[in-house]
Amino acid sequence: MQKITILIHCPDQKAIIASVTNYIAAIDGNIVYLDQHVDADEDVFFMRIECEFKAENWNLEAIKADFQAVIATPFQMSWEMYLQTDKPKMALFVSKYDHCLYDILGRYRAGELPLEIAIIISNHNDLEAVAHQFGIPFYHVPFTKEIKDIGEKQQLELLLQNQIDFIVLARYMQIITPNLIAQFKNRIINIHHSFLPAFPGAKPYHSAFKRGVKIIGATSHYVTEELDEGPIIEQDIARVSHSHSIDDYIMKGRDLERTVLARAIKLHAERKTMVYNNKTIVFV
Amino acid sequence: MQKITILIHCPDQKAIIASVTNYIAAIDGNIVYLDQHVDADEDVFFMRIECEFKAENWNLEAIKADFQAVIATPFQMSWEMYLQTDKPKMALFVSKYDHCLYDILGRYRAGELPLEIAIIISNHNDLEAVAHQFGIPFYHVPFTKEIKDIGEKQQLELLLQNQIDFIVLARYMQIITPNLIAQFKNRIINIHHSFLPAFPGAKPYHSAFKRGVKIIGATSHYVTEELDEGPIIEQDIARVSHSHSIDDYIMKGRDLERTVLARAIKLHAERKTMVYNNKTIVFV
Amino acid sequence: MQKITILIHCPDQKAIIASVTNYIAAIDGNIVYLDQHVDADEDVFFMRIECEFKAENWNLEAIKADFQAVIATPFQMSWEMYLQTDKPKMALFVSKYDHCLYDILGRYRAGELPLEIAIIISNHNDLEAVAHQFGIPFYHVPFTKEIKDIGEKQQLELLLQNQIDFIVLARYMQIITPNLIAQFKNRIINIHHSFLPAFPGAKPYHSAFKRGVKIIGATSHYVTEELDEGPIIEQDIARVSHSHSIDDYIMKGRDLERTVLARAIKLHAERKTMVYNNKTIVFV
Amino acid sequence: MQKITILIHCPDQKAIIASVTNYIAAIDGNIVYLDQHVDADEDVFFMRIECEFKAENWNLEAIKADFQAVIATPFQMSWEMYLQTDKPKMALFVSKYDHCLYDILGRYRAGELPLEIAIIISNHNDLEAVAHQFGIPFYHVPFTKEIKDIGEKQQLELLLQNQIDFIVLARYMQIITPNLIAQFKNRIINIHHSFLPAFPGAKPYHSAFKRGVKIIGATSHYVTEELDEGPIIEQDIARVSHSHSIDDYIMKGRDLERTVLARAIKLHAERKTMVYNNKTIVFV
Repeated sequence: MQKITILIHCPDQKAIIASVTNYIAAIDGNIVYLDQHVDADEDVFFMRIECEFKAENWNLEAIKADFQAVIATPFQMSWEMYLQTDKPKMALFVSKYDHCLYDILGRYRAGELPLEIAIIISNHNDLEAVAHQFGIPFYHVPFTKEIKDIGEKQQLELLLQNQIDFIVLARYMQIITPNLIAQFKNRIINIHHSFLPAFPGAKPYHSAFKRGVKIIGATSHYVTEELDEGPIIEQDIARVSHSHSIDDYIMKGRDLERTVLARAIKLHAERKTMVYNNKTIVFV
Repeated sequence: MQKITILIHCPDQKAIIASVTNYIAAIDGNIVYLDQHVDADEDVFFMRIECEFKAENWNLEAIKADFQAVIATPFQMSWEMYLQTDKPKMALFVSKYDHCLYDILGRYRAGELPLEIAIIISNHNDLEAVAHQFGIPFYHVPFTKEIKDIGEKQQLELLLQNQIDFIVLARYMQIITPNLIAQFKNRIINIHHSFLPAFPGAKPYHSAFKRGVKIIGATSHYVTEELDEGPIIEQDIARVSHSHSIDDYIMKGRDLERTVLARAIKLHAERKTMVYNNKTIVFV
Repeated sequence: MQKITILIHCPDQKAIIASVTNYIAAIDGNIVYLDQHVDADEDVFFMRIECEFKAENWNLEAIKADFQAVIATPFQMSWEMYLQTDKPKMALFVSKYDHCLYDILGRYRAGELPLEIAIIISNHNDLEAVAHQFGIPFYHVPFTKEIKDIGEKQQLELLLQNQIDFIVLARYMQIITPNLIAQFKNRIINIHHSFLPAFPGAKPYHSAFKRGVKIIGATSHYVTEELDEGPIIEQDIARVSHSHSIDDYIMKGRDLERTVLARAIKLHAERKTMVYNNKTIVFV
Repeated sequence: MQKITILIHCPDQKAIIASVTNYIAAIDGNIVYLDQHVDADEDVFFMRIECEFKAENWNLEAIKADFQAVIATPFQMSWEMYLQTDKPKMALFVSKYDHCLYDILGRYRAGELPLEIAIIISNHNDLEAVAHQFGIPFYHVPFTKEIKDIGEKQQLELLLQNQIDFIVLARYMQIITPNLIAQFKNRIINIHHSFLPAFPGAKPYHSAFKRGVKIIGATSHYVTEELDEGPIIEQDIARVSHSHSIDDYIMKGRDLERTVLARAIKLHAERKTMVYNNKTIVFV
């Protein structure tokens, strides 16, 4: 049994669903999941399909070529098709904070993440021991404003050598270069420790404390050149009160960061996210 | 522009989505919403579609007949098709508690509920003034064990005379007769003041307090003959602590009851719920 | 049995709790609730106490005078003492939106709010019928930039004549004048339909939709001269997804606005809030 | 600077707070946290205090003896007093599930838990490698109905040898013997994968799926002889829908189990929980 996932977006028009589902039926596929969305303002159509094929002599590349000709071209589709057994390869960027790193590696070893963690890259050596503890290759790539060209070059080499599909910034705390962002468009996931768009930038827990909010949050988003302005994948919140100190905010926030980042990673790895117009469509 | 909603369930089989969406395309309909679900254990397929028609000489009854012949019969479908402008007629059953009643009537007058509240029926006179305040006909139908046959008869007459589509028990606190349940199968919505299946039956806040739970809840469900065992439509919860008294539970619970019941009413009136195997499919 | 609530704040120093609790014990009071908070940055102490007195010849004014002399003056306290049976008098300011108004009046009539709604003031006539429906005096006070002096004068007269203790802006949508704010410092409660500090100002649901957030919110706060910058009393949130339109945001938001405003009103009326440094201490 | 935490409960009576706070002031302590609770049904008083002492020649044992004589005996108090620097020693019981284990060890290494994990005990060998990976001594103690006396004996020896203060069952899945429960009364924390009292016993996710609930939960509680009936420390929930399979419930549940258990462990280690009448008082 072959299981595939198809992601489609195209100008909204008549009979898209009928055509795609007809096509799948015609090649003996069985649809087990279909969800669609129409952006009414932009007249754009989005669809995610999971289907199964029992055929023996089944060839993904042949189907892709056929789908392009028969369906995608006439409907001007942007589309992707994945075998569900093909797990994306992920690179983890970390700095000194270890709580998200421990959480991701723990979930990974517990079998919860449908992906392969190929490498860990850090601008410091602090977390090398954690990487080794979990048996993941660790690369120390120094990165400061002064040496960002060298840093970027090293990062890109490691990413290419390891055929990385997407990058997760687990409290990496460094700027990602525009070039790297361009090469991994909508494939770099960051966790920001506030409820965006509230408190972008540095020290959001301190700002939240100063403002006296009653709820704090965390936000995972795809990285764009505008800091903390990329398409939001997932958010969550926790209640705080006057009795909590900034340290309490930080401690509660760590839990949010862990959970929200882990959910975003899973959604991306399961190919449940699409990006359009700086927003995400998340099919769950 | 005609807007219709279609609810379908049938044995799972190949090409259902393709056939239905082809059909709608063929009669010049434009699908604006489609969601489907397959119950893998029972091999049953569920789908909800919203579509628009621009045709002038458009006739719902003619389309229904055609859909039955061309699509529904071959696929052995159970199905319903509604004009979105046809609002269901609702009867409210109340007793002495007024918080859910005020909430529903307030939302109704504020234009939030796509339905018509035709009548209010109560086994007491206490809330007659509230009904009058909001201009809804009020009927006092005494109901006790001893006179339940008479009570049921009066209830049924009122429901039929007013062409009631569905009933909402807003803390009605009386047993509904099996005959009434049978005549309004999956069309009577109750609010139970606990997180079912925890604390069914009487005085759930007292039981929750005694057990020392940290979270209380409310549950809206379709009424079946088994008390508090019907298909769950919606649930929500609130945190409690040792510092809360039973009265605090009750006060927090009133908020849950209001919100959860209002959501269930809205989901039902928008034809977003389907029932199968004592569970609901809720397309949101 | 007399029940009183005491709110205290003063510079942090040794033996405050001991002195106050000694004092209450000495005058035969029984403490049934005590919570305190120290703002470590500002070195300020806050305390809320509920206590009961069984004495027959009991005189609140005499106790207040004694407390001032024996406790408050030595510790440089700001403090308030209330009989729990003395309900604060509230004025409701509304404009055209009716959902918060219906909710507050429904809760009021259902006996959930420990306060008296004395008057409803509006810059429009639209909601006069709702006020009458609930038997609350309604005053139409036109208010625009051009006539704000006249408007303010009329508002103040009504507030004074009716001995109003605090004001609730139930989606009032008009600027409150600095003079009115000064006269009702920390006694005007607003509901803003976003998760502040995100999306202050006009049309927050539109901004939230544009940004693609996954969670929307509502915030109740005391009004200060800086728009949407006052001390936050309560906040809550709801999940949204790509499938929701701006209208869905607005509908979900109405539920948040209702709930968050009702909670803030209740906390204020129960004298559970204190304000310091543009933040609230909320003793629950 | 010495920081201590005091937990007190005693029959409710006049002037408890005054006496205790006087006492602390008299020995030059500064109260930084005080919360109290009166169980009105049982007339029992509970209090938690954190205070600081600057004195150099400060002796906890001397203060304890004095407090017993001057305060605790007259008021018939049960009480405990801890130096905040004294971290409790914890034993982890695991079986084959590793997600809670990874989570606890990750948090431990990330410095979030104020305790010492002394040993890991398991009835299987599967998780030995994880224990070694994190450098925690691992003991394989086989445990079945037939050999439960031998198992219990080995468990108790390890607990005593390592001066264990409390035990955490991280999805241990085995019965704890009445003798062990008696020796660690209110000091064994379990995580149950449902929203108790709903779905006690085996396979709660399957039961929740069958019942069609819209929210699932997890519950951490102190272990008593009655299965899943002990005092609840913490609970949390997650939304589910018809579109989720039992496997989805299990995956979402793992996140709840992790979070709820971690919170309970932290609350216990920080001495924020008290047990009375099979319920917890949790001072937060």
